[in-house]
Amino acid sequence: MSENKIPYKIYLDESEIPSKWYNLRADMKNKPAPLLNPATCKPMTAEELGAVFCEELVQQELDDTTPYIDIPQEIRDFYKMYRPAPLVRAYCLEEALGTPAKIYYKFEGNNTSGSHKLNSAIAQAYYAKKQGLKGVTTETGAGQWGTALSMACAYLGLDCKVFMVKVSYEQKPFRREVMRTYGADVTPSPSMTTEVGKKILAEHPGTTGSLGCAISEAVEVAVSNPGYRYVLGSVLNQVLLHQSIIGLETKAALDKYGIEPDIIIGCAGGGSNLGGLIAPFMGEKLRGEKDYRIIAVEPASCPSFTRGKFAYDFCDTGMICPLAKMYTLGSGFIPSANHAGGLRFHGMSTTLSQLYHDGYMEATSVEQTSVFEAAEQFARVEGILPAPESSHAIRVAIDEALKCKEAGEEKTIVFGLTGTGYFDMVAYQKFNDGEMSDYIPTDEDLAKGLSSLPNVPEQ
Amino acid sequence: MSENKIPYKIYLDESEIPSKWYNLRADMKNKPAPLLNPATCKPMTAEELGAVFCEELVQQELDDTTPYIDIPQEIRDFYKMYRPAPLVRAYCLEEALGTPAKIYYKFEGNNTSGSHKLNSAIAQAYYAKKQGLKGVTTETGAGQWGTALSMACAYLGLDCKVFMVKVSYEQKPFRREVMRTYGADVTPSPSMTTEVGKKILAEHPGTTGSLGCAISEAVEVAVSNPGYRYVLGSVLNQVLLHQSIIGLETKAALDKYGIEPDIIIGCAGGGSNLGGLIAPFMGEKLRGEKDYRIIAVEPASCPSFTRGKFAYDFCDTGMICPLAKMYTLGSGFIPSANHAGGLRFHGMSTTLSQLYHDGYMEATSVEQTSVFEAAEQFARVEGILPAPESSHAIRVAIDEALKCKEAGEEKTIVFGLTGTGYFDMVAYQKFNDGEMSDYIPTDEDLAKGLSSLPNVPEQ
Repeated sequence: MSENKIPYKIYLDESEIPSKWYNLRADMKNKPAPLLNPATCKPMTAEELGAVFCEELVQQELDDTTPYIDIPQEIRDFYKMYRPAPLVRAYCLEEALGTPAKIYYKFEGNNTSGSHKLNSAIAQAYYAKKQGLKGVTTETGAGQWGTALSMACAYLGLDCKVFMVKVSYEQKPFRREVMRTYGADVTPSPSMTTEVGKKILAEHPGTTGSLGCAISEAVEVAVSNPGYRYVLGSVLNQVLLHQSIIGLETKAALDKYGIEPDIIIGCAGGGSNLGGLIAPFMGEKLRGEKDYRIIAVEPASCPSFTRGKFAYDFCDTGMICPLAKMYTLGSGFIPSANHAGGLRFHGMSTTLSQLYHDGYMEATSVEQTSVFEAAEQFARVEGILPAPESSHAIRVAIDEALKCKEAGEEKTIVFGLTGTGYFDMVAYQKFNDGEMSDYIPTDEDLAKGLSSLPNVPEQ
Repeated sequence: MSENKIPYKIYLDESEIPSKWYNLRADMKNKPAPLLNPATCKPMTAEELGAVFCEELVQQELDDTTPYIDIPQEIRDFYKMYRPAPLVRAYCLEEALGTPAKIYYKFEGNNTSGSHKLNSAIAQAYYAKKQGLKGVTTETGAGQWGTALSMACAYLGLDCKVFMVKVSYEQKPFRREVMRTYGADVTPSPSMTTEVGKKILAEHPGTTGSLGCAISEAVEVAVSNPGYRYVLGSVLNQVLLHQSIIGLETKAALDKYGIEPDIIIGCAGGGSNLGGLIAPFMGEKLRGEKDYRIIAVEPASCPSFTRGKFAYDFCDTGMICPLAKMYTLGSGFIPSANHAGGLRFHGMSTTLSQLYHDGYMEATSVEQTSVFEAAEQFARVEGILPAPESSHAIRVAIDEALKCKEAGEEKTIVFGLTGTGYFDMVAYQKFNDGEMSDYIPTDEDLAKGLSSLPNVPEQ
């Protein structure tokens, strides 16, 4: 396997880093449904959104017609510090599986945030800086998004206030310290620093917090402090736009060697990675130029696509954010303590939801122990210790490669390896000790979550 | 700064990964002194060394005449999974410092072990496999070497037994779990699984262990179990040989753009990184072809070069290993709890010691808090969170760049960024909280350590 024409890692030149993001919505016949104001059930206006988000990001959020949007030079300069990300040919995994399939993965973990989150963090921080803001606020659960935003803000000299779910703040002190090293102000949520935090603490004195609550605190601080806006690491259209850099680079690398993928696989939480990875491929599919099997992988414990409902719902548990039409388990759905923190969101990107609804992609769910089995196998032969989130895609890539082996088919499989698992060793330890369990919500659990869906008049 | 001729990251092609290691000793007029058998004070023979180390590694250890040694194809294949490592132009750091100096760093942290250690781990594991052995044993302190060896052994299907200093085993559970995920058998040292461990535990019931003790246990298991050998991650000539890949790639990348370094800087613990980084440059210097300033950086708390003695000493605290002629603080020297675990070794590579003794390189020592100040500044502008060990080199690179600013000199500085600090957040937290202190051993401390030097007849 030593002298292959296709190298282990396909690196693009710096000059080949895409100069424009690709806006998938421009090629969609059925556009993703607009965000609604929860009070009026009318589409959110640019002005309403501008109270929470930066102006230019609001434009990007609402723009569903412009196919390509220039990446500002300052952002491209930052991208050069950790991009292009390598597209890796998984020769060793192929050999270990004995499959005729050709497996590639786009590795987004070669940066200190350890994930693809940095691609959107720098963009959002840049527009905040450009608008003359003092800083941004956000929430973080597992900590990857908070780390990415801290790095971007340190680079640009912006203030960064992160509300970190209290249980993570205490259980993941290392993540917290990385953010602090990058100068971020990290507050365990719920906190006494916000009205909503005080209210929640009064009602639930011992609570260890939730993403929904942290969002509420971050939004409150953004709207009540002049010079601050709120930023979010997934779900939004603007985030998928920024993350399209993943797919554009992947496509450029494949094109360089004349490789045509048959199957494209990504893990899906809020959709930031999946939406970015598949963007240009889905564009070709939407325009009828090419056909690909595109597979979203979600945890069986939080199965928005495979067992959720396509409906308007709140993006946050606190029910203060706009309503989004998406595949959802209901904002009242409480995911089990699945370790892939980044995939524990009850909803899904509206863009991806519409595409799934229209039959342009498949979705499948996998159980946690089988995900860690795949992660371990991958780590041992490919060297990289994958994040639990990313390992959902590895699981399905391996399964598809084994199907190829059975059928004797030489398919080309591409999957997104979103990040590394250095800060997830508690989960790996459980797996190593044989103490990891699976959890699949019952139909009753799901019905309970869906009962929280708001009543929204047909649009 | 956007359209520079020299990119942010200079990547070589896979085909440009060196096919031979460079054996610096071949170009040394004064060869490093041989290892001595502590019982006889005579040079260790290949046969004696072969009881502990793999045959081919013994040959490499003793060979001080062959300048280039072929890298076996299997090792080159493994290198392709994470090499070539990028040579990064620190544009952002230069701008932040306002220096006319041009700063480059060779980044060795883009792999799961998080450091350069993998370069020698795969080589040593390969030769063990080739010899038909069942497995290897080693010790690890901070855990980078143990992780690297676990990865290499997982890849080759070798058994890997790691003795991890008990205090690290307990305080760094994540490192331990990474090794276990790669299938290694990790034992806290001292343990009841070896005779020497039992003896130490009987004498010091509450001990949290030491590197010296872990070495003794690992060696005992290697020599008393058929099919096992002991491997070591630093100090040895063979390790410097394997690590020459760092310097060879660095030189190839610089040559590609016609860049001539003025100053080359590396952190120095046992010498594995420094010896590898400087190898081809030092070769030119030894052959009188070029001149470079070469600077070794060590912690003020463990100053082997700058305050030690050039003498024969034991490599381990347990005094069972061969004697090496090196700059040493005495095997009885107890370093303070400096967080750069990888630089807490009392001695130094014999090759580097001879070169320093002969005036071919400089050495300087730096204090811990100033190292973390440099680390933080670097992280915020360059994005990468550096390991404390690597940050010693960053400190001196910044200091040299600031001298250039003062003098208005456009020097080219190259330093080795050996790894990432993801598993060192306890130290960063101390720094972030303002609770980090410096420690410089007194002359009495040093005299006490040096009093442990063995009596060796003049060779």
